[in-house]
Amino acid sequence: MAYMPREPEMRRSPEFELIAAIRGRLAAGGSSAQVIGIGDDAAVTVPRGATVTSIDALVEGVHFQRRWSPPAAIGHKALAAALSDLAAMGARAGEAYVWLGRPEDLDREQVLELCDGISACARQAGVAVLGGDLTAAPALALCVTVVGHAARPSDLIGRDGAAAGEVICLTGELGGAAAGLIALQRPEPAAALPEAERQALIERQLWPRPRLAEGAALARSGATAMLDISDGLGADAEQLAAASAVGIEIETARVPLASGVERVAETLVGRDAFELALGGEDYELLCALPRERLQAAVAALSELGCPLTEVGAVGAGRGARLRLPSGAEAAPLGHDHLARGR
Amino acid sequence: MAYMPREPEMRRSPEFELIAAIRGRLAAGGSSAQVIGIGDDAAVTVPRGATVTSIDALVEGVHFQRRWSPPAAIGHKALAAALSDLAAMGARAGEAYVWLGRPEDLDREQVLELCDGISACARQAGVAVLGGDLTAAPALALCVTVVGHAARPSDLIGRDGAAAGEVICLTGELGGAAAGLIALQRPEPAAALPEAERQALIERQLWPRPRLAEGAALARSGATAMLDISDGLGADAEQLAAASAVGIEIETARVPLASGVERVAETLVGRDAFELALGGEDYELLCALPRERLQAAVAALSELGCPLTEVGAVGAGRGARLRLPSGAEAAPLGHDHLARGR
Repeated sequence: MAYMPREPEMRRSPEFELIAAIRGRLAAGGSSAQVIGIGDDAAVTVPRGATVTSIDALVEGVHFQRRWSPPAAIGHKALAAALSDLAAMGARAGEAYVWLGRPEDLDREQVLELCDGISACARQAGVAVLGGDLTAAPALALCVTVVGHAARPSDLIGRDGAAAGEVICLTGELGGAAAGLIALQRPEPAAALPEAERQALIERQLWPRPRLAEGAALARSGATAMLDISDGLGADAEQLAAASAVGIEIETARVPLASGVERVAETLVGRDAFELALGGEDYELLCALPRERLQAAVAALSELGCPLTEVGAVGAGRGARLRLPSGAEAAPLGHDHLARGR
Repeated sequence: MAYMPREPEMRRSPEFELIAAIRGRLAAGGSSAQVIGIGDDAAVTVPRGATVTSIDALVEGVHFQRRWSPPAAIGHKALAAALSDLAAMGARAGEAYVWLGRPEDLDREQVLELCDGISACARQAGVAVLGGDLTAAPALALCVTVVGHAARPSDLIGRDGAAAGEVICLTGELGGAAAGLIALQRPEPAAALPEAERQALIERQLWPRPRLAEGAALARSGATAMLDISDGLGADAEQLAAASAVGIEIETARVPLASGVERVAETLVGRDAFELALGGEDYELLCALPRERLQAAVAALSELGCPLTEVGAVGAGRGARLRLPSGAEAAPLGHDHLARGR
């Protein structure tokens, strides 16, 4: 009876059964907002205090390749990357809403594996996935909106509060995600790496962990400006400097590198290890702190098992500079080089 | 200096300048939450009462074609479709967060036109666009998360409250969006239609208006269950019946058709006009109401310039039935037919 005046490729049928299965897989998890119920058109919550909301997407061929990233890792990373923005505000993670663009060659089992990856990340972070939507798409794509919470807006850390005289600090280590990608792209030479090291680097690329507890601790420790390293240290430091209208100088020799990054840089691509640290995707946090708060912040993060390293200083100038051991300056923005490299 | 160990197609450079321009275009609009500020990682609001959140996406080749949909209409429709879910809860629209997947052949001017379409829809609906993100993508795609508000969770209307004995009502008219699509797909025969009628049908397809004021009025008027007609009358009535665990019978002869739908059905595709009414995308609201509340609800919607029509009843059975004038039953689910038609 029903006649659909669509071209064959238009208005794919909603797959109610699969959507129900997806919702079932995603339903596990916690929430820091009082969740009243999952409506069918939309989810209802009663948040208290301030909420923080961010939208982020992963697209096949742009951010990942299915040939080296299993479905669960893609789902996990999509949520982890979105949550990293909440970590960078010092917020408590609360809820997530996920759209999945499904290509024809992604079968039902893979869709559900992908949802399991989202769900595992949500459980780790104490996040409730309250909404899911599914659409046909020419390539696999995920768009994730995350909502975080804080008692007061003033508890949240923007990018614009850094002041001259403060120190610039970095959580964890850089370069692991970039080195892991190289290991995935070049499996034959990468097989010569020590196995535990190779696995750890690949895990940094495929299964990043958002620094939620660390971001909250830095907010409590007096961070004046904070963001996550997603586009690359240089590009992100430039963003922080621009938002705060300050100059930031980072000493590249002080930037901690993940274990194995030097070996990958040297043996697999014949480049300087620090170049991999500029690659982004490490989802570490970069923040400005008053010098007198540094010691307490380092202690607070140490309790979480996370190193916090002073890598530079805020000055009176404008923009970000990366100072090499030679005293020379490296270009701060990875993305210009990226564009040229294509 | 920066070395990116990516394959050429991986990790496209973030285009900071274009992102800034997009944010500028999207910044207009209002909000019903108290917005403290737009953080760089995420947006901060202090909502009061209950919030309602929904995620929705439009994908090129699945939901629209660029050859007949100008960029501004695509942006407008992406937000309008998402807001329709808030309308169906009876919520006040508040904030929106937009991700744009940009194919290589969508130039800067088209991106900004698309943002202008989003912005125009946001202004009409009193919505603040607080977050925008841009990624390279193989096809044009938009994912929109919308947040609505209500004083109390109990002010919001789910899909699960319909009870036997209630009436089923529909806002506005159906079939216009489907007829408009036919007119776009077949411009030569469509040129023979009366011009005003043709334009109005195309507008229903390209520039849908979410029924926000009507949804809120229906919530106040005692609607017990409500959803928007996005997948098609039959499929959506089936959803309402399933969520409420009731039977719904709709008399097809009572469903109001948009002006021109009969002419398009007869002259352009040689089908029954009612078949177009099952096509979905009209973004009208379907709700259940206690019979004694019907008259007041009709009066409330009339003040908004919107007809409210009794099209059926809630019974004790299960599932949705579409009763034809002959007494025969039409299949309720458009999507099975759709699947067969492909």
